[in-house]
Amino acid sequence: MMEYKDFCHYSGLFSVASYEQKETMTNSVTHFDYSHVMAMESRKRAQLINSLGGFKSVCLIGTIDGVAAANVAIFNSIFHIGANPPLIAFIVRPDSVDRHTLSNILETGVYTINHLNEHIYKQAHQTSARYAKEISEFDATGLTPEFKHEWKAPFVKESRIQMGVEFKQRIDIALNGTIMVMGEIKHIYFPSDCLCVDGFIDIEKANTITCSGLDSYHTTHRLGRLSYAKPDSFPSLVSLTYEINELG
Amino acid sequence: MMEYKDFCHYSGLFSVASYEQKETMTNSVTHFDYSHVMAMESRKRAQLINSLGGFKSVCLIGTIDGVAAANVAIFNSIFHIGANPPLIAFIVRPDSVDRHTLSNILETGVYTINHLNEHIYKQAHQTSARYAKEISEFDATGLTPEFKHEWKAPFVKESRIQMGVEFKQRIDIALNGTIMVMGEIKHIYFPSDCLCVDGFIDIEKANTITCSGLDSYHTTHRLGRLSYAKPDSFPSLVSLTYEINELG
Repeated sequence: MMEYKDFCHYSGLFSVASYEQKETMTNSVTHFDYSHVMAMESRKRAQLINSLGGFKSVCLIGTIDGVAAANVAIFNSIFHIGANPPLIAFIVRPDSVDRHTLSNILETGVYTINHLNEHIYKQAHQTSARYAKEISEFDATGLTPEFKHEWKAPFVKESRIQMGVEFKQRIDIALNGTIMVMGEIKHIYFPSDCLCVDGFIDIEKANTITCSGLDSYHTTHRLGRLSYAKPDSFPSLVSLTYEINELG
Repeated sequence: MMEYKDFCHYSGLFSVASYEQKETMTNSVTHFDYSHVMAMESRKRAQLINSLGGFKSVCLIGTIDGVAAANVAIFNSIFHIGANPPLIAFIVRPDSVDRHTLSNILETGVYTINHLNEHIYKQAHQTSARYAKEISEFDATGLTPEFKHEWKAPFVKESRIQMGVEFKQRIDIALNGTIMVMGEIKHIYFPSDCLCVDGFIDIEKANTITCSGLDSYHTTHRLGRLSYAKPDSFPSLVSLTYEINELG
């Protein structure tokens, strides 16, 4: 715990600005070291460390169990693994309500991943409440299960970008008992006017939102798309060209 | 490839809106299935599948090699693993410039993770160019290496949220040859006025940005923080209370 003895330890809020450079208050920098973080109250530490992960992909994952009861739960640790084959992953915490999602995926082999938008973020957040296993979060939160193309797991009808995913592998992370779940994307649904000619889907135009920490939700505003980086030039802004002209 | 024979296959841009419900053009939904995705040209597929991962945590990772040459590279697959201990991970693609980062981490055992902001996103993007191993991306892009608190790896001075991270584990993902790198957060630096009393760091206030796809960068606008979800109530908006009053 005290392996960084040469560093200043926590005594309230510790600012390094005083000895790094003279700055105004609004530019002061706080430094926390490992021993400070480990000494924090656990929920405060969870808020802090979750914030450091940056803006996250937050989605609703839809599943069914063996008797076709529908379940939906929010996850904020979705990440891209690769495009060929199209693989996507997320992290499950074993001590959480996420367990219903994991057990359903292991039982049926399929699930859906559905982007959040501004109109459903409160319902989406509410799916993280500890409902009993027999209660469907769809019913409890007012989200609508949508079954299509014979995919066994429910999509979230109110979501504008939806994926049907087939379970591929679980990796147990011994360091803290979490589980990484990987799957292959088998079906994709998205608003037709959001597809660009180079394959990019404009998820901002589709109203997809992001989150930070455990409970903060954010819309986005594009700074720009940048050209492919090459050593002999600097990146330039690239305009978006949609497959479908906005005027139809 | 043709396992979904009962679904319509690709012929240009395929919309399911016509048989799902009558909708206006702007509400039409495009459906791609697995065989369509796998038949796409590889860069187009990469753009498409990377978009589906949602808004991502995009950061600069700073390393040094055995002779203390500094390296910095952009990664858009950073994700939270857990808060106790504080673990963070990212994905490395073996066929990319990311390899310098990985070999340096394996050699020295330490690295830094630095959030992006609007002022450095072009330089950050440029670090993905295929520079020769002997060229420092710091020199090539104009970013500034910052060494502090005896941490061996360089922080990015222009970044407002920085972490010193110690390598813990690599997990090779057999499904596509990518590598997951996990580390423990040992040092945290952030603007003092961004810390809330509950431990949440307001990364939007710190000007942290997000990305989508391979090359699209976005600022954010908070919809709100939501209260902890409980089965018997609906989430409400929570106001942010900072440790340091904005008026000093």
